[in-house]
Amino acid sequence: MPRKRQNEDAILRRIAYSFRPSRNQPARQFIALGIGDDAALFCPKPGHETILTCDWFLEETHFLREKHPPDSVGWKCLARAVSDIAAMGGAPRCFLLSLALPETHTGRWLDLFLGGLRRASRKFQCALAGGDTTRRNEILINVTVVGEVRSASALLRSGARPDDILYVSGRLGEAELGLQIVRQSQGSASKKNPLTRKHLYPEPRLALAQWLVKKGLATSMMDLSDGLSSDLPRFCTASAVGALLEKGKIPQVRIPNVALKRGRDAMQLALHGGDDYELLFTILPQKAKLLPKTFRGVGLTAIGRITRDRELLVLQEDGRASQLLPRGWDPFCNKL
Amino acid sequence: MPRKRQNEDAILRRIAYSFRPSRNQPARQFIALGIGDDAALFCPKPGHETILTCDWFLEETHFLREKHPPDSVGWKCLARAVSDIAAMGGAPRCFLLSLALPETHTGRWLDLFLGGLRRASRKFQCALAGGDTTRRNEILINVTVVGEVRSASALLRSGARPDDILYVSGRLGEAELGLQIVRQSQGSASKKNPLTRKHLYPEPRLALAQWLVKKGLATSMMDLSDGLSSDLPRFCTASAVGALLEKGKIPQVRIPNVALKRGRDAMQLALHGGDDYELLFTILPQKAKLLPKTFRGVGLTAIGRITRDRELLVLQEDGRASQLLPRGWDPFCNKL
Repeated sequence: MPRKRQNEDAILRRIAYSFRPSRNQPARQFIALGIGDDAALFCPKPGHETILTCDWFLEETHFLREKHPPDSVGWKCLARAVSDIAAMGGAPRCFLLSLALPETHTGRWLDLFLGGLRRASRKFQCALAGGDTTRRNEILINVTVVGEVRSASALLRSGARPDDILYVSGRLGEAELGLQIVRQSQGSASKKNPLTRKHLYPEPRLALAQWLVKKGLATSMMDLSDGLSSDLPRFCTASAVGALLEKGKIPQVRIPNVALKRGRDAMQLALHGGDDYELLFTILPQKAKLLPKTFRGVGLTAIGRITRDRELLVLQEDGRASQLLPRGWDPFCNKL
Repeated sequence: MPRKRQNEDAILRRIAYSFRPSRNQPARQFIALGIGDDAALFCPKPGHETILTCDWFLEETHFLREKHPPDSVGWKCLARAVSDIAAMGGAPRCFLLSLALPETHTGRWLDLFLGGLRRASRKFQCALAGGDTTRRNEILINVTVVGEVRSASALLRSGARPDDILYVSGRLGEAELGLQIVRQSQGSASKKNPLTRKHLYPEPRLALAQWLVKKGLATSMMDLSDGLSSDLPRFCTASAVGALLEKGKIPQVRIPNVALKRGRDAMQLALHGGDDYELLFTILPQKAKLLPKTFRGVGLTAIGRITRDRELLVLQEDGRASQLLPRGWDPFCNKL
């Protein structure tokens, strides 16, 4: 067999082997047919809608070949797409992997990448169903995730109404701080530094989102991927409302070290930093007391309320209000 | 609003506007929620499995910015993914578009691209459900198509059995000839040249595939995307069989012009040329007489039979048999 055919088939075999059936694998009952045919077959659950989302994860735009450990690239390309499933209140079922690689990266790099991807796949119970591979000088990844949610119970961006209380999960700005540390590192970033963990291995808030749906507590939801100041306007536009944020209430990243803190402003990181994959959601005022302070160790914080005027205002700690301007990550202008 | 946020939102608005509801649009009853939220919501049809497929369509690898008309890029990126749905015998329902563009291509190029994509979307009754956009120096496209097929009736690659008759639709090598003409053209290829039509605007064989499923005629099927000599081995591996092709029966591209013919061998184009998106399928010998010679103007030709020995042989016109070696398109070694 000439070398050229072996190439693509070898990559496919490697991926198939890495995701071979095992005891720890995600439940495969949803996949009637996986890798190896023209397409995959997914068995939808009766009474459910199918959630569809896809995400680019491109070298130089979303990660750096020399700085991001390959297993973090594998974990994160799936985690960020799964976060969109969480944002609807759904459960991930399976994913398609489109991978373009330089030939130099089809050995050890690919193995480590697949290791991180497999860990994420198991953690999120989201099985590999299929994909497409090709050769390219740069590492290009696109991930499509298929999820499910009970019919008519998905939490949309468009459900927020005036006077709803605006909540956020976790602390904002942690991933942006992690990115800054990774960019400043010499060579590949350390996987053990707790400050880079949220940037390298984000955890979509699946359990929290599903709990909110089950309890019927939230009126709307989205995940924060580009930063609060960029995502909140999209949220408000979808609901045709405005919002009043209370600056003092926004849960900010803690910068533990004086040396690290130099020139860094935790509030700026929290307002504009991307990649946190925390949930932004609204609760009817009369139901706010039903919401716990934390859910499985993740803080749930009221940061403001929805308003009728289509303005985004930030109430400063001195009582003055100013306009919130979007300064988060925009892929059409920003690069890593 | 600072310029950077406008960029991505402007692209999204442009795509959404291009695919706005209209009388000619594909039926949207399958999409409960389209563009504009964290993910799309698809309503699966009871008693059906969901078909999932994704395809790269990358500048330099799959098309050339200066030679391929933008509306052909739009048409073809969807058509080739839809062909995988056809290959299972299914019906396309909706698609996700991942698009990375240089800023120089967010104006006229994008409009023409969206025009071709919209035409394909209407033709194949496959509605845009969502996607992801980003900025990039090169034009990168990834398309995920979601289709449906009645449960347990998809036609797989793995169903071929010894003595089944091997069929192919249409003529092979037409798209490869078209590619050669496009590559030799000065500037953008002419859309009016009938010889480039199959390369620029391929037509997935949806109606034929669905008819084969409905009539229960075929035992296995795949679409020819990389060329017969590369795809047939994959087909046979999936079914754990071999095949004996009769060279004289393979329907070849007709090269109408002596000047065009110089140095070109129609049989080589038919055996190894990619991008035809014709169907390769098998029929039980006793059912072969039920198959018409043509289906809606597309030829259906018996080109050989499935064998027990796992070998791929070509019976020459002089009666000798030789091994078929894969020389089709392999994205891990070949470029346009």
